[in-house]
Amino acid sequence: MSLLTVGTVAFDAIETPYDKVDRVVGGSATYITLAASNFYKKNNIVSVVGDDFPKEMIEEFHKREIDTAGLQVKEGEKSFFWSGKYHDNMIGRDTLVTDLNVLASFDPILPESYRDAKYVMLGNVDPNLQMKVIDQLAGKPDMIMLDTMNFWMDIAMDSVKEVLKKIDVLTINDEEARQLSGEHSLVKAAAAIFKMGPAYLIIKKGEHGALLFGENQIFSCPALPLAEVFDPTGAGDTFAGGIMGHIAASGDKSFKNMRKAVLTGSVMASFCVEKFGPNRLLEISKTDIDQRMEEFHALMAV
Amino acid sequence: MSLLTVGTVAFDAIETPYDKVDRVVGGSATYITLAASNFYKKNNIVSVVGDDFPKEMIEEFHKREIDTAGLQVKEGEKSFFWSGKYHDNMIGRDTLVTDLNVLASFDPILPESYRDAKYVMLGNVDPNLQMKVIDQLAGKPDMIMLDTMNFWMDIAMDSVKEVLKKIDVLTINDEEARQLSGEHSLVKAAAAIFKMGPAYLIIKKGEHGALLFGENQIFSCPALPLAEVFDPTGAGDTFAGGIMGHIAASGDKSFKNMRKAVLTGSVMASFCVEKFGPNRLLEISKTDIDQRMEEFHALMAV
Repeated sequence: MSLLTVGTVAFDAIETPYDKVDRVVGGSATYITLAASNFYKKNNIVSVVGDDFPKEMIEEFHKREIDTAGLQVKEGEKSFFWSGKYHDNMIGRDTLVTDLNVLASFDPILPESYRDAKYVMLGNVDPNLQMKVIDQLAGKPDMIMLDTMNFWMDIAMDSVKEVLKKIDVLTINDEEARQLSGEHSLVKAAAAIFKMGPAYLIIKKGEHGALLFGENQIFSCPALPLAEVFDPTGAGDTFAGGIMGHIAASGDKSFKNMRKAVLTGSVMASFCVEKFGPNRLLEISKTDIDQRMEEFHALMAV
Repeated sequence: MSLLTVGTVAFDAIETPYDKVDRVVGGSATYITLAASNFYKKNNIVSVVGDDFPKEMIEEFHKREIDTAGLQVKEGEKSFFWSGKYHDNMIGRDTLVTDLNVLASFDPILPESYRDAKYVMLGNVDPNLQMKVIDQLAGKPDMIMLDTMNFWMDIAMDSVKEVLKKIDVLTINDEEARQLSGEHSLVKAAAAIFKMGPAYLIIKKGEHGALLFGENQIFSCPALPLAEVFDPTGAGDTFAGGIMGHIAASGDKSFKNMRKAVLTGSVMASFCVEKFGPNRLLEISKTDIDQRMEEFHALMAV
């Protein structure tokens, strides 16, 4: 009975029009579990790092009751490293460096204690690794959510479609939904994607918010307009973490509760972009989250 | 005591990925007044057409109690004609033909009975013509809303800024808000634009909905995800017409009521795109509008 997250734990170097940072902890699993841990306490993480990964961050995970039995530490090897530079609009970005390092040979092995996971979040990694995680589960979880991207659709669409058959919720952006379905209209894209497996589709639109599709139901969740978007890195993962944390804590996967989950994800993502990397996520309190939730309600009230 | 609309009344030829139409009635004032007339009955229109303009459409205006004393009919001349072709994404479009015809010498003269207008909607025309309309008003209206576009900012920014000093509400798209303010963040753009005159800013984002900015308040209004967007022509004008119709009918320009007005505009725009030109607007009933409003509430509920 836990929320199992698979994804990367890594270092990022990020440059934005405002500032730059040479080395900050990043990776999808980092953002997902940090966000989820605000709502749900039984978080298990499956990932891999080198021996260069800071012990302080692992202690931070433990402080938040994030179990790291599944976080493999490879002695004498280096952690995954990504470096990117954002365009002036803070949406487009160029990847400058991708050093896979430990990720090149990553084999996501689930510790025995992880296999009865009730909730599973498959972060954006190779769809074959996502499938390998599903294959190790002891039973059928209440909810499996999967994040993926155009890169995997370009080079491994068959594998993406195989893993889609096994999941409940897919989260991708609008262009990826169009690529996956071959439909321009997001309503038609959702109908096509439901036939591939998922019961819910969450379309991430960055500054334009998100759309949650269920069978014959849609929820449009706004993004909070911000005076400054400092660093968008990890916002999509943080969004997913907020969603899964809310669902795991409430144990309710109705469409009505999924609306609240998507709103919770949007609240968490709005913090993520306020500082470099996960720095803002590391400092916010329950009170900050509640206040931001009130701001979202005011934004949507009519 | 009326809602005065100035804008174009024209013919359009439209091609979309779905279909094409050689000649359909269009123009900003057409869409604005057709939308507004569903909510408010004292609509006055200031525009110009040639003697080729169909009497049936003028009769349609009269059936909806739209006063056409200010609609100049130029004998022996042709109505304004625009022709455009939409890209596959139904957002981008290429203008194929712009025949100004009667619009080239348009002098917006307000009939005496129009001058005490309580509400004024300045559709997207030359900012000098918009100013000329304001100069003919007998007193200060309760609300003046203005629509403009990047074209006028490119060639007549000074005139745009002059007329902004005189208005209450500006409606433009996100890129135009950035161009006008020099700010990428829409929060900062709104603050800069408030210093130019308007008290409210409504940013149109097409399929991503709209943002209403007031002093320290924001409302995010969704767009209804549609399986088919048949023809986006006139959607922005229809949106503005719904807003002004709601405000004129309720007589309340509080931020709270402006939220409802923007939602009403979005409801009307969602109909506009369902058929070529204003065809869908000409057939919808009060019941259709109420049902669509319910769909929007379901879309936003949390």
